[in-house]
Amino acid sequence: MKKSLGARTLAFPTPTWVVGTYDKEGRPNVMTAAWGGICCSKPPCIGVSLREATYSYGNIVRRKAYTVSIASEEHVRETDYFGIASGRDIDKFSETGLTPVKSDLVDAPYVEEFPLILECRLIDTIKIGLHTRFIGEILDVKADPSILDENGLPDIEKLRPILYSPGNRLYHGVGKCLAKAFSIGKEKPTRS
Amino acid sequence: MKKSLGARTLAFPTPTWVVGTYDKEGRPNVMTAAWGGICCSKPPCIGVSLREATYSYGNIVRRKAYTVSIASEEHVRETDYFGIASGRDIDKFSETGLTPVKSDLVDAPYVEEFPLILECRLIDTIKIGLHTRFIGEILDVKADPSILDENGLPDIEKLRPILYSPGNRLYHGVGKCLAKAFSIGKEKPTRS
Repeated sequence: MKKSLGARTLAFPTPTWVVGTYDKEGRPNVMTAAWGGICCSKPPCIGVSLREATYSYGNIVRRKAYTVSIASEEHVRETDYFGIASGRDIDKFSETGLTPVKSDLVDAPYVEEFPLILECRLIDTIKIGLHTRFIGEILDVKADPSILDENGLPDIEKLRPILYSPGNRLYHGVGKCLAKAFSIGKEKPTRS
Repeated sequence: MKKSLGARTLAFPTPTWVVGTYDKEGRPNVMTAAWGGICCSKPPCIGVSLREATYSYGNIVRRKAYTVSIASEEHVRETDYFGIASGRDIDKFSETGLTPVKSDLVDAPYVEEFPLILECRLIDTIKIGLHTRFIGEILDVKADPSILDENGLPDIEKLRPILYSPGNRLYHGVGKCLAKAFSIGKEKPTRS
């Protein structure tokens, strides 16, 4: 018998993606967002949801661009910090010693030390409620060669992204490989 | 030096969420979606992206409702199968022996054997490209008591959801706990 937990944002996994933007003065800022996901294959698009109160919100509206920098586990402290502090008050890059790099494709910076980067051009803005969804077309993905597999694709075990658990608010790493997708399900399913 | 991988949907992690719907005749269907994410805290909303060609697409448009059933690792085979087969051709529930349960809140079924369920009322539909984003307000979350922690919240280590890696198309489990969110970042960040 299932237990009702109420109308809450309890879905798993959610990501911890670091959204990079420039402010009015061209200062780079970053904030961490767990409310995000890929939303279209063609054109390739990714969405992130921000509260209007965030400093990054106005930056995206003005510049119509953002990046998504995906951290490895070793930067869990910085990733959490980026979600706590506000770019209104401080320069999160100089505070952490991480390096902002200007995207050559969109008007936004990314985090040099994070191994996977998506450069996004804003194509749609959907006001939902407390959060607004920014849909960005992915113009390029840039990766550290160290996280790529033998086919030149990102290997999640090398990337080691950080998962966020809503509710109990914990970060987890990635575990073992379970199966090949679009493959294991082709075997005759066994009845439970 | 980062390597350009091109304009592709390479973001990590992505979920493997099973979207439940009823068709015209009231037959329950499920499909697996990795293009999804929480998109608003108030009201609590979750989005899933479907191609118009899927059987579930028309079901959501007609019934204005869907559920998200989140599987544990032991159902990776069924979860993959739900993403390969089409409800146009076969009854995925009877094929796998899993049990459809009618939501008491929305006009959609969920998977009884999966430990976490979100019941969603469609509130917005955004055509992006190949995929259309369906935004659903979460009216309730229902969980098996076995996946809850001592505070009554889902514990990702008990839920053991399946992560999907775009690109190399692999499923992974959840790894170890790294840190408490909104906490570890309050300590003075160390400069890299």
